[in-house]
Amino acid sequence: MLFLTAIMNALIIVDMTEDNVEEFVYGQCNKIIPVINYLSDKFRKNGDLVIFANDSFLKEDFLFKSKMKPHSLRFTKGSDVSHKLDLQNSDIILPKRRFSAFFKTDLDQTLRTFNVENVFVCGITSLFCVLATAYDSVCHDFYTTIVEDATTAHKDSIHSEMMNFLRRNPLQPLLEVKKSIEISI
Amino acid sequence: MLFLTAIMNALIIVDMTEDNVEEFVYGQCNKIIPVINYLSDKFRKNGDLVIFANDSFLKEDFLFKSKMKPHSLRFTKGSDVSHKLDLQNSDIILPKRRFSAFFKTDLDQTLRTFNVENVFVCGITSLFCVLATAYDSVCHDFYTTIVEDATTAHKDSIHSEMMNFLRRNPLQPLLEVKKSIEISI
Amino acid sequence: MLFLTAIMNALIIVDMTEDNVEEFVYGQCNKIIPVINYLSDKFRKNGDLVIFANDSFLKEDFLFKSKMKPHSLRFTKGSDVSHKLDLQNSDIILPKRRFSAFFKTDLDQTLRTFNVENVFVCGITSLFCVLATAYDSVCHDFYTTIVEDATTAHKDSIHSEMMNFLRRNPLQPLLEVKKSIEISI
Amino acid sequence: MLFLTAIMNALIIVDMTEDNVEEFVYGQCNKIIPVINYLSDKFRKNGDLVIFANDSFLKEDFLFKSKMKPHSLRFTKGSDVSHKLDLQNSDIILPKRRFSAFFKTDLDQTLRTFNVENVFVCGITSLFCVLATAYDSVCHDFYTTIVEDATTAHKDSIHSEMMNFLRRNPLQPLLEVKKSIEISI
Repeated sequence: MLFLTAIMNALIIVDMTEDNVEEFVYGQCNKIIPVINYLSDKFRKNGDLVIFANDSFLKEDFLFKSKMKPHSLRFTKGSDVSHKLDLQNSDIILPKRRFSAFFKTDLDQTLRTFNVENVFVCGITSLFCVLATAYDSVCHDFYTTIVEDATTAHKDSIHSEMMNFLRRNPLQPLLEVKKSIEISI
Repeated sequence: MLFLTAIMNALIIVDMTEDNVEEFVYGQCNKIIPVINYLSDKFRKNGDLVIFANDSFLKEDFLFKSKMKPHSLRFTKGSDVSHKLDLQNSDIILPKRRFSAFFKTDLDQTLRTFNVENVFVCGITSLFCVLATAYDSVCHDFYTTIVEDATTAHKDSIHSEMMNFLRRNPLQPLLEVKKSIEISI
Repeated sequence: MLFLTAIMNALIIVDMTEDNVEEFVYGQCNKIIPVINYLSDKFRKNGDLVIFANDSFLKEDFLFKSKMKPHSLRFTKGSDVSHKLDLQNSDIILPKRRFSAFFKTDLDQTLRTFNVENVFVCGITSLFCVLATAYDSVCHDFYTTIVEDATTAHKDSIHSEMMNFLRRNPLQPLLEVKKSIEISI
Repeated sequence: MLFLTAIMNALIIVDMTEDNVEEFVYGQCNKIIPVINYLSDKFRKNGDLVIFANDSFLKEDFLFKSKMKPHSLRFTKGSDVSHKLDLQNSDIILPKRRFSAFFKTDLDQTLRTFNVENVFVCGITSLFCVLATAYDSVCHDFYTTIVEDATTAHKDSIHSEMMNFLRRNPLQPLLEVKKSIEISI
């Protein structure tokens, strides 16, 4: 038996919540927001998926036994998509509990349900949640690209070093780093 | 109701398989092997867990659609613990299919079954599987430490930069970078 | 090192959504609704967790390639907790994608975060989602009880036979069937 | 873009380990063993997957706080495939820690890697591990069939009632009960 399927793309926008954008990486986010809005528009027009994967913590969470103060709490405005991002009704909002958008969520199943083969990851931050999401994405067998100019970190140097480290990785072309302008969908 | 439990530690040694140690990061591994053997001995004597989390791929795996050639294949000698490592009968060998030792495995359940609270991660490499395992470990609510001098990468500069990035992270003391000499168990 | 923790209980109310209660098992639900409301009140007063685990499907889901028509769809009123159930602000609403409330969700982590040791499962149906949730609960190492008179199926005979099969299982006391009146929390 | 893939089948043989077959359901297993051997031969000749999903417990496991005594322990002969079953080199042996063969394992990824669409489940027992595996299989979006005469339980009446309950379920044709003779692969 044989079957035919159209291949789809998904854009996963990581942790661009009200609390994160305003309180944690304010200055850094300003430059990536227009790029993310440009990309999400492009994906929607192409009939592809736009997914906002948002920190959605409980205040009792283990993570807050650290220097990090409680933020982006579930069922509060702080875990909503930032008002600076262009959010449309057709987009998927995925609350997530830890770093990776795939960690204890149904994201892998959603992507397969829509025949997604190519996943593009952006948002914050290059060292933590974007990276963890991109790694899990390729581990779940999706062709995965980190969008360099739509991703940032607390410091520019950390972001640019991480992109350098990842650009020449042995998993190419399964795991890639690209600029938004290089993305052809 | 109240209960009492002794807190345990676990050492997770990532991807030190025959194939990985001999073929992929040969020179880099020489300096960490004595440190790993020192640590595993220390953990065993303290009654703590020593876990070898080993790449255990199928040759049909998605990952091999990349520049990476098939290696550390399941049910072959290549996925065994390297003969240069000190392996004891009381150790746990955990075959893993992707980057993180927690990805589609029962490691989290094993750690909880033995009342492990503190997880120490080492092996290869700083940018990929050690990092993914350390991130998943803290996301599964274990106090997590990457052992700097028992971990390496294809290049020294990548390893040392990654440790620098991670050393001053906001999740301290849940996620730490330490030298082997600093570990008090 | 030693630590002290208070043990908590959780009541998981499975699939009592608007669509399910009204369309699928209408008559059967009438008798369990008062029992569930009695139990949820009791758990809240005891400081324990009340969790509504609700079918939250996408219309494209694989499950709807069956005789089952799309229902309890994500982001629609049909997947809300039925208005016949007593829902309070302190309760947790957990959208679920398949049978078990633990399947691709963070429920296990939530339960551990609140030191839950004892899980009580009720709702619909005895043969499918309540059973799958109870099985996953014990597999995640929680003491698990199905509340017989707060659970039902499409047919009374299926429900009562399932309870008979499960009552004398070899996993007692980890997996139990009890009447609401027998529950001492 | 379009792609073509051949659809594959998999036979999952649940918990037919030395310990389980000899100690727990001895008499009941005698009648299903020839059927399982007939089926596994048929699947292999058709180029399909044969997977033995075997209980592989730690003696410290939570499950053994019940009436169930430790058995099928990891790294012991008791968790090997029973010598009464026809095991071939091309088969996959999957150690599992709890009821479902999908619980904290990479089985879903293995099945997708081989383009499996149709999963057939058999072994022991109808009420617990076969059922949990079949439910997880359909929840992971595989067309799933329980093979009635290759599955058994501690009591014939439990097995036959369970098959009756499941035969006319609303998830048909995604979840089916069939006799071995009815399976056309």
